[in-house]
Amino acid sequence: MIQEANVSTISVIGTGNVGWHLATALYRAGITICHVVSRKPEHARELASLVDAIPISDPGTIEDHPDLYLVCVSDDAISAIADKFKGTGARLVHTSGSTGINVLSKLSIPAGVLYPLQTFTKGNEMDYSKVPFLLEATDPDFLKTLGSLAKLLSDKVFEIDSEARRMIHIAAIFACNFSNHLVSIAADMMREIDFDYELLVPLINETTEKLQKMDPVTAQTGPAVRNDTDIINSHLEALKHRPRDEELYKLLSENILRYRNKHNE
Amino acid sequence: MIQEANVSTISVIGTGNVGWHLATALYRAGITICHVVSRKPEHARELASLVDAIPISDPGTIEDHPDLYLVCVSDDAISAIADKFKGTGARLVHTSGSTGINVLSKLSIPAGVLYPLQTFTKGNEMDYSKVPFLLEATDPDFLKTLGSLAKLLSDKVFEIDSEARRMIHIAAIFACNFSNHLVSIAADMMREIDFDYELLVPLINETTEKLQKMDPVTAQTGPAVRNDTDIINSHLEALKHRPRDEELYKLLSENILRYRNKHNE
Repeated sequence: MIQEANVSTISVIGTGNVGWHLATALYRAGITICHVVSRKPEHARELASLVDAIPISDPGTIEDHPDLYLVCVSDDAISAIADKFKGTGARLVHTSGSTGINVLSKLSIPAGVLYPLQTFTKGNEMDYSKVPFLLEATDPDFLKTLGSLAKLLSDKVFEIDSEARRMIHIAAIFACNFSNHLVSIAADMMREIDFDYELLVPLINETTEKLQKMDPVTAQTGPAVRNDTDIINSHLEALKHRPRDEELYKLLSENILRYRNKHNE
Repeated sequence: MIQEANVSTISVIGTGNVGWHLATALYRAGITICHVVSRKPEHARELASLVDAIPISDPGTIEDHPDLYLVCVSDDAISAIADKFKGTGARLVHTSGSTGINVLSKLSIPAGVLYPLQTFTKGNEMDYSKVPFLLEATDPDFLKTLGSLAKLLSDKVFEIDSEARRMIHIAAIFACNFSNHLVSIAADMMREIDFDYELLVPLINETTEKLQKMDPVTAQTGPAVRNDTDIINSHLEALKHRPRDEELYKLLSENILRYRNKHNE
């Protein structure tokens, strides 16, 4: 990479999927990872060994602060981390979609958010260059610093405030987490009739493939968008013994038709 | 292909996505497509020209029947097509997931179902070898004939009765049509905050990518599976102005937790 970041040293707090991915990606991009912090020493050691960092279980023991700390812990733990660093002069950046930047304001020095719009699985290699990084900072200079850092990894870097970031997170939950759950339901239905779930994989792949070329409302197929009430009713009847799935089927089918009508207006 | 089908001539009724794909794929596999039938003459001509067939708008005018007719029309039109062929000695095979084979029983000669478990878009090239073909026939010999035909296209050919086929169709609707609709909702949310929907595409691709390697319950991420009630509640609050999406969010989140608990039992 030709760009140069205004930050050269980072410590990563949290060794979950996000911490694992950001630590290894930034390390490969030339950033020095000073510490990897986790309450569980073996987790800290494991990730630290991959990025030549010092494993730490209590951040209170750190004397020399890096340029910034990347806080990759669950939403409900961010505030407690900020408390630990109050008055130390450490600069914190959290990575959550739905926690506001205000959770870091108690630090009374520049703080920020760097939210990668992606689902991460530890150990799963990934091309970061297309992953959108959504940034927010309490201060314009620190925003620039975060921008230079994010551009080390990705071509898609945006400034966005906490409220819009939360809406994007909700959109991501629909497009990713909830879609994945619908596949869980489908797999369960296949199991019910002793059929291999994997037979659905080509269909799932093609559904995603179509979204590379067309918008999702245009790509919509199936009985709901055709308003094929005979088939819809026969499916609701067949789902009587799975009342939650029956309810989901009904809600989603009505919604599909509503979207089609809105789209054709 | 080395296998030889017990059928060498086919006519295709219907020129939608399924008719288009099956006609062109079977033509390329060496089958003679005799006629392409559509009420709309220009649709019949268009597809017929691709597969060296005769375009027909009224099947009553056909004198020499092919080995079989592949009926690729919407579910509610299959019965009327069967009526047209009653007493002619024509062998009909429909391609629907949810219409029973009994709709063809009035023909009182062998009939069948050949249901490809895939979403088709006209003009979109595809590898058929991994597409499951689900077969049913009124007669064991005709089932063999259909099997030899399906094997010209795919390695994955299964016999399955009408009831199980309907459940597989419902599973496919959840995994494909409903997932696609969730992406439509996500795109609409992105539009609401003036953000480009395409930023979600890497996330959607990775969600599908994970399903090549792990089962969907294991692949599940997000606030619901972590039972992160603070985040879930803040999302429900943020969706108050989109009550249908709020309801879906609630239902799907409860369901995700239920699946996780069932899985961990």
